[in-house]
Amino acid sequence: MRAQVFVRLKPGVLDVQGKAIERGLAENDFSAITNIRVGKLIEFDVAATNADKAHQIVESVCQKLLANTIIENYEIKLG
Amino acid sequence: MRAQVFVRLKPGVLDVQGKAIERGLAENDFSAITNIRVGKLIEFDVAATNADKAHQIVESVCQKLLANTIIENYEIKLG
Repeated sequence: MRAQVFVRLKPGVLDVQGKAIERGLAENDFSAITNIRVGKLIEFDVAATNADKAHQIVESVCQKLLANTIIENYEIKLG
Repeated sequence: MRAQVFVRLKPGVLDVQGKAIERGLAENDFSAITNIRVGKLIEFDVAATNADKAHQIVESVCQKLLANTIIENYEIKLG
């Protein structure tokens, strides 16, 4: 089963990559684009007997390895 | 309009972040997870009169700033 995990900085946490992109956009006349946030997209295969079990494994790996839950939120998509 | 851009390394391009996560998983007994690829998730607001115009702006910013099209693919979602 293919899993997607989206890791985003929590609202209010300074996004330095986002700010850098905003500066780049301003220099390239893309004023239509605002409020940029940069996160991570992590995709992988999960071997599990059913979707519930797969979700449990992915949840555990997010907590332990993929996200820093002090400053980041994560979202899981299976399918 | 909120836009999401997913930037992924092209197939065959070495994913060093993915390899580092794979090593971390092996050390933490997550053998159920394989084939990890790490990409970027970029989210922002686009000011445009309609969806076609918004898509055009996002396409342009992907080409010029967000993706390195030699080694990366991008996917756009508007909504």
